[in-house]
Amino acid sequence: MVHVSSDLLIRNVRPFGAAGVDVLVRDGRIAAVGADLDAPAQTRVEEGGGALLLPGLVEGHTHLDKTMWGLDWYRNEVGPSLIDKIDNEREFRRASGHDAGAQSLALARAFLANGTTRLRTHVDVDTQAGLRHLQGVLHTRALLKDMQQIQVVAFPQSGLLGRPGTAQLLDQSMAAGADVLGGLDPCAIDGDPVRSLDVLFDIAERHEAPIDIHLHEPGAMGAFSLSLILDRAQAHGLRDRVAISHGFCLGDVAPAERDALLARMARLGVALITSAPGSRAVPPLMICRAAGVTMMGGNDGIRDTWNPYGMPDMLERAMLIGLRYNLRRDDELAVALDCVTESGARGCHFTDYGLQPGHRADLVLVDARTPAEAVVARPARRLVVAGGQIVARHGQLQADVPGAPY
Amino acid sequence: MVHVSSDLLIRNVRPFGAAGVDVLVRDGRIAAVGADLDAPAQTRVEEGGGALLLPGLVEGHTHLDKTMWGLDWYRNEVGPSLIDKIDNEREFRRASGHDAGAQSLALARAFLANGTTRLRTHVDVDTQAGLRHLQGVLHTRALLKDMQQIQVVAFPQSGLLGRPGTAQLLDQSMAAGADVLGGLDPCAIDGDPVRSLDVLFDIAERHEAPIDIHLHEPGAMGAFSLSLILDRAQAHGLRDRVAISHGFCLGDVAPAERDALLARMARLGVALITSAPGSRAVPPLMICRAAGVTMMGGNDGIRDTWNPYGMPDMLERAMLIGLRYNLRRDDELAVALDCVTESGARGCHFTDYGLQPGHRADLVLVDARTPAEAVVARPARRLVVAGGQIVARHGQLQADVPGAPY
Repeated sequence: MVHVSSDLLIRNVRPFGAAGVDVLVRDGRIAAVGADLDAPAQTRVEEGGGALLLPGLVEGHTHLDKTMWGLDWYRNEVGPSLIDKIDNEREFRRASGHDAGAQSLALARAFLANGTTRLRTHVDVDTQAGLRHLQGVLHTRALLKDMQQIQVVAFPQSGLLGRPGTAQLLDQSMAAGADVLGGLDPCAIDGDPVRSLDVLFDIAERHEAPIDIHLHEPGAMGAFSLSLILDRAQAHGLRDRVAISHGFCLGDVAPAERDALLARMARLGVALITSAPGSRAVPPLMICRAAGVTMMGGNDGIRDTWNPYGMPDMLERAMLIGLRYNLRRDDELAVALDCVTESGARGCHFTDYGLQPGHRADLVLVDARTPAEAVVARPARRLVVAGGQIVARHGQLQADVPGAPY
Repeated sequence: MVHVSSDLLIRNVRPFGAAGVDVLVRDGRIAAVGADLDAPAQTRVEEGGGALLLPGLVEGHTHLDKTMWGLDWYRNEVGPSLIDKIDNEREFRRASGHDAGAQSLALARAFLANGTTRLRTHVDVDTQAGLRHLQGVLHTRALLKDMQQIQVVAFPQSGLLGRPGTAQLLDQSMAAGADVLGGLDPCAIDGDPVRSLDVLFDIAERHEAPIDIHLHEPGAMGAFSLSLILDRAQAHGLRDRVAISHGFCLGDVAPAERDALLARMARLGVALITSAPGSRAVPPLMICRAAGVTMMGGNDGIRDTWNPYGMPDMLERAMLIGLRYNLRRDDELAVALDCVTESGARGCHFTDYGLQPGHRADLVLVDARTPAEAVVARPARRLVVAGGQIVARHGQLQADVPGAPY
């Protein structure tokens, strides 16, 4: 039985900056988009005031379980290497009893207040915490399911091979309800790329799960790992089922090697997710898109033991993407926005996405004149509709959204 | 005659996150800092509520005259090269009658609302506009002089040699009240680095003016120009009088050449200003500081025909500096903040700067627990005191600040 909510008519909004229209929402979906729509009886009417209308924003890569959003300030004194950060975090959690359930809910709510209605989060699975973080995030996913679609990636943050039992935990995670299988640097962290990837792809095959691999490895090492991943995506017939997060190597291998990898990725439907860090080589956005590779945006961690930065706001991430790739023209800024809307949904396979009738009614109203202005100015969201319900006004969640306000 | 304003006592603020103190302001200056200060008769008392206390923020490099802050959205369709952007802007201004006076005031006010009490702005001087932009910005400087110290750089945006008469206009600009003489890419724009720099340094000598040169030139070309600049700084005895904006070449020449240039810069007191763009090589912040070169932060242009980005908020710029240089630890974020506070003031030679008694009372209260949190979260400024006056609360200017609200 579908719960039939009352209709909602939003008057006078401008889809991606186009001419003003009305949007009728019924049963959680967009029922009609057009000029001067009639309001059926018992329809709740909202004045859009000529605001820019965007579809719900898409977070392609974050770590809800790691965040200290809303907690005491964490004084970061961590060493510079990847392994320093991994070990520091595991130790911090052991000592602090970090509650991934409460923290993921706090951050997911903040994302929702800023119009993020679809979100992919990596969740740490390791031999110390077991499935504890996963259970917490699955609880958050269940609490918010009517308003925010959360994809949970079971992620071996401490490596897949180094700590015996991790593969079994990933297997259990997929059985427990994770949506996507995660991986991590098969050379640099696991030290045995062939075995690491074989184990990973076997688990994915068993659960018919898509894969999303953190690939921080630079240059030739990263390109080698990426080629091994593509070999397996092909051999396992995983077209459109594999994604690469970061993929820094695509920003610093020679153009000919890069282009050959991008061509294979496009053929296999392997998507790329970037947080567009200013301090690293990054996959070249426009070249990736021209090659036919879907490129989406993600914040990566927000306010955690790794990294003090970040806002649960995909317009701010689009701005950072724009700055990283020197996107200045309005048509270029539309590409930055696309990374956190249409391309984000396509890369994560979020369905029923967009402003067309029939799709899930995830609507974001922004007081901006153009999509480019929305990206550079990032105003508080005037109204957020998620799954057909009004969930936030002026950046503040409505009282009936589950979870405690921070 | 000094205007004697009533005293102001701010209770319970934490300088750079240290233990809570009170701050007494008298005659525009910090009179005392300490625990539980007595309030003299007729003292206005403000509750600081334990807010973080920072000195007024410093903008080391912006272009107040160029901005379209508060105007209609400018649709950017500009070509990729530097010359495309220069020519486009000149043509836009000719067609639009862009009012640099009104625009500079609007943006300077927005900077003030966000706690920027000292600011260096480059102002275009060219054969088409003559001194029109300069006069507008000098008017803004005069209007705000009691609350915001604005240094005006006479800047040959269209080149110094290419358009005959520009050198004379720069000379007139200095006579008309500009504080600093600006320069631009002596190889890439002027095409005759020796003559360009000789003309520039002659004007500076005539007016005993400091110099600030935009140096976008990359790699070997930029290093060559920089060495010519250093030769002249030395020959003219301009110790502590020359600054380099951008200095991208220091981010992509070989370390040995870079270090030799930095050592010369340190000896000559040549400061560096960076906007820390994510899409370019940049001078290495920590290496520059270790070499003894003062490195400060600036937004560069904000919402103009060059660039749609930017906020008149130096905490946001500090965040972008932090992201660009991968500053994650609290002690590293303090360096990002230093670029827009102490180092900014030192590099621009703003005097009477800081939280010590006797200095000009430019105070910024931020609801943040630590300096690092102020940088990453950038909350609206709870209170801004400039030259001893309360000028803004919660990001909103007080009504008596000159200029029309946007």
